[in-house]
Amino acid sequence: MSAGIRAEQFAVLVRDIPSSSEGYSTKQQVDSFFRQIYPETYYKSIVVTENKAVCKIYEELEDCKKKVARAEIIYGNSKEVNPEGVRPTHRTGLLGLIGKKVDSIEYYNKKITELTPKLEAAQKVTLKDKQQRSALVFFTNRVTAAAAAQSAHARMIDTWTVIDAPEPRQLLWTNLHKTFYEREVRQYVVYFIVFMTICFYMIPIGLISAFTTLPNLRKLLPFLKPILDITSVRTVLGAYLPQIALIVFLALLPKFLLFLSKAEGIPSQSHAERAASGKYFYFIVLNVFIGVTIGGTLFDSFKDIQKNPDSITQKLAASLPGNATFFLTFVALKFFVGYGLELSRIVPLIIFHLKRKFLCKTEGDVKEAWLPSDLGYATRIPNDMLILTITLCYSVIAPLILPFGAVYFGLGWLVFRNQVLKVYVPKYESYGKMWPHMHVRILAALLLFQATMLGYFGVKQFLYTPIIFPLPIMTIIFSFVCSKKFYRFFQSTALEVASQELKETPNMEIVYNSFIPPCMNADKVPEEQLNV
Amino acid sequence: MSAGIRAEQFAVLVRDIPSSSEGYSTKQQVDSFFRQIYPETYYKSIVVTENKAVCKIYEELEDCKKKVARAEIIYGNSKEVNPEGVRPTHRTGLLGLIGKKVDSIEYYNKKITELTPKLEAAQKVTLKDKQQRSALVFFTNRVTAAAAAQSAHARMIDTWTVIDAPEPRQLLWTNLHKTFYEREVRQYVVYFIVFMTICFYMIPIGLISAFTTLPNLRKLLPFLKPILDITSVRTVLGAYLPQIALIVFLALLPKFLLFLSKAEGIPSQSHAERAASGKYFYFIVLNVFIGVTIGGTLFDSFKDIQKNPDSITQKLAASLPGNATFFLTFVALKFFVGYGLELSRIVPLIIFHLKRKFLCKTEGDVKEAWLPSDLGYATRIPNDMLILTITLCYSVIAPLILPFGAVYFGLGWLVFRNQVLKVYVPKYESYGKMWPHMHVRILAALLLFQATMLGYFGVKQFLYTPIIFPLPIMTIIFSFVCSKKFYRFFQSTALEVASQELKETPNMEIVYNSFIPPCMNADKVPEEQLNV
Repeated sequence: MSAGIRAEQFAVLVRDIPSSSEGYSTKQQVDSFFRQIYPETYYKSIVVTENKAVCKIYEELEDCKKKVARAEIIYGNSKEVNPEGVRPTHRTGLLGLIGKKVDSIEYYNKKITELTPKLEAAQKVTLKDKQQRSALVFFTNRVTAAAAAQSAHARMIDTWTVIDAPEPRQLLWTNLHKTFYEREVRQYVVYFIVFMTICFYMIPIGLISAFTTLPNLRKLLPFLKPILDITSVRTVLGAYLPQIALIVFLALLPKFLLFLSKAEGIPSQSHAERAASGKYFYFIVLNVFIGVTIGGTLFDSFKDIQKNPDSITQKLAASLPGNATFFLTFVALKFFVGYGLELSRIVPLIIFHLKRKFLCKTEGDVKEAWLPSDLGYATRIPNDMLILTITLCYSVIAPLILPFGAVYFGLGWLVFRNQVLKVYVPKYESYGKMWPHMHVRILAALLLFQATMLGYFGVKQFLYTPIIFPLPIMTIIFSFVCSKKFYRFFQSTALEVASQELKETPNMEIVYNSFIPPCMNADKVPEEQLNV
Repeated sequence: MSAGIRAEQFAVLVRDIPSSSEGYSTKQQVDSFFRQIYPETYYKSIVVTENKAVCKIYEELEDCKKKVARAEIIYGNSKEVNPEGVRPTHRTGLLGLIGKKVDSIEYYNKKITELTPKLEAAQKVTLKDKQQRSALVFFTNRVTAAAAAQSAHARMIDTWTVIDAPEPRQLLWTNLHKTFYEREVRQYVVYFIVFMTICFYMIPIGLISAFTTLPNLRKLLPFLKPILDITSVRTVLGAYLPQIALIVFLALLPKFLLFLSKAEGIPSQSHAERAASGKYFYFIVLNVFIGVTIGGTLFDSFKDIQKNPDSITQKLAASLPGNATFFLTFVALKFFVGYGLELSRIVPLIIFHLKRKFLCKTEGDVKEAWLPSDLGYATRIPNDMLILTITLCYSVIAPLILPFGAVYFGLGWLVFRNQVLKVYVPKYESYGKMWPHMHVRILAALLLFQATMLGYFGVKQFLYTPIIFPLPIMTIIFSFVCSKKFYRFFQSTALEVASQELKETPNMEIVYNSFIPPCMNADKVPEEQLNV
């Protein structure tokens, strides 16, 4: 694909195709439906298929190809020592540990010749019999694609839902066939699970900690007894078991939230990460920011308040600054340790060297191990938003936090400019759709800051407090204007833009092929088959 | 225009056209913008112009034409008495009472020959110099028009807003040029005024009544003294002055709300009436339903409650049925008197006969006087919704209201089926856009009913009250499903529908001409002029 032409601009994603009564295949249905509406600009369609079986065979085949290459390199290397070389062998059983010993190169080559026709047959079967009620539709014209993605196509919203096609590389194929109602129900179920997780995650962790005390462990897992009897291990475990459970939970949480977001039925990776990022933001704001502020303030002075209830406002005003120290340290730690690790990239370096030593056999393996990852928006953005919220809200109570916040974002600009431009490789292009998501949260932080300020000044009985009343109102008006004026164009392409002429005429066949998933690649599937 | 082809399906309304920096006219701007996006289906555009001056001349001209016709008929009639006839004359001054006496036929014919070239000149000037930043754009294709109305055209929402074109006959030309921000600001200002009107309308009425007491009237308007000194007049006025102010207010309110809705910058008559209907609904629900219920219940027993505050729940439960009688009478009155007047059409009949006697001179005048009006959705629908709300809410407290409600809607079906099919002439076709508006209010009434029921059962300490808890939840889910599933298609045309083939090929020139306002009618304006 040439740089100027982006395949997804010529395509739309169609979901909720109604089941046809006249025994037409989905492919025929899609073709006739869109050909009637767009007789001149309709190009072709790819019906989403249930690819699980094909993908399994394809992965097995790719794995075999990789192993043949690796075995040949090992064989070649061995020739340098001994001119005849040692043909590499392995056992066919579990993990190469048991079973018959075979010559690797021969074995895998034989397997490849077996699998190739099997894959072709499976591809044909999938294309014909496993069509799902979703499709990618291609137009010869960017304006038509952009307008189609914004228009209602059928009289019922739960049929023929048409949206912008995501990039081929970020399509979540397994989500595409989910129906309108399934998506709606899944969404609310996921929201409920996330709500429960955010509010009550301490309960399962507490339960686990309660059950994994040392005596319980000894009773349930008797084989651990000798280890647990060592005094030092016992001390450490006794002290840190609950914390370990918490750390494991916090480490797994982003992955869990991403899994939940994908379970909602979202069609693209970027959208799923955005959804996960939103969920993670609520989690850290509620637990780190609000948790520490309220917890630290109220629980410390609970007894005093019980004795003299009227003192609550003074207590609040007096003890809020106490948490400021915690958050000051929190922000400082984030940029000292966080940016240090980020810039030095020590963790990926260690992992790379470990991989190269023990796993990599071929040039390709080394390259793959060296490959930098994606930026990981789903956790980075909520963290930055949290720092912003903390800095803003505590700027009135403990203004010392401001230089720390400024250093965090200033250094962050320098560090991440470098990392983004020269280190990370983006996994997808979402055309800036993350920005409205962040902008809303920045404005929410601003509003929270203004509310805190009002409350704090009120508690301190500052005379000119009413002067700042217009601030939150202006923030609300500003956010309303922004959402009215700008947000829509992150969602849908303006036709004015889509109608700009391209430098070259797109080759529609390449555009079309770029959307075929690798396991269904048409290299060997004849063109007629695709039009079933 | 043939029955199968509706002009508005080929057109879109474009607003917020940005001012061009290169000195192009709006017409040129619109043409180049849309021709770039829709090179094949773009047909032509009509730029909205400031028509006030032209319309004034046009109306004068039409008035003269009507008067000539009338004078000729009077002259013809006079010939039956006297073979030579009496040429009708009139005075040119104020209301035909003072000034020079002239021969009417000659005078008006001369005026017509004067005005016709003046109109043509004014039309040319308007087309060239009074272009406003709004236009009607025509496509040769219904699918393109439907898709364009649903798509974002420019990167900023406040430029090139494209929406479905309303029917030509219901376009509010003077609203079209209002800019995005003007519309937004106007909307909120109008909402605020309506809110103030609904909540505090009693204050100005009270003030007026307070100032228009008899002694004040006598002082301020001394020439009324002789009338006010008659005892019977004094008694009636003294007793009814405040009520008269209220009645005048209530009679003018729908017109005032329609005026406010139009002031919001709404582009079509049907939309403005829908908006006025919504505002009127809030007014009558708040003032009739809630006002009477709360007022009647709480104010009567206010003193008892003051003495024994715990008795409030029992008081409420005991006195709610008291209002039931009022509402029962209210519903009965509505259908006895309301439907009687509706069916007999006595008021329009009287007005027609008065008009025929004193105003109508020509056949056309009589026809015009006889012409039935529009149904008047803006007041009828809120009234029906009010009856529905009352019937539902009081059905638990006083089930006797149910047969009255059933009779109201049953008779209403019979009466209005007849009236709608055989009496009234619709002024516009809104493609059922009133339905979601009503549906939301029906569901709101249902929810209010379920809440009242819960509260009433709670007050009466009915044991099985919890059984009905799922009802409001189910109502909310149902309304959510409906809004998700159905409402969108009242707003925008499904492309599937727009792509259905028409029985005949549309004559684009007729479609185009049907949108030209009568005062700008191109009969005499050469075609080149329209393309300035």
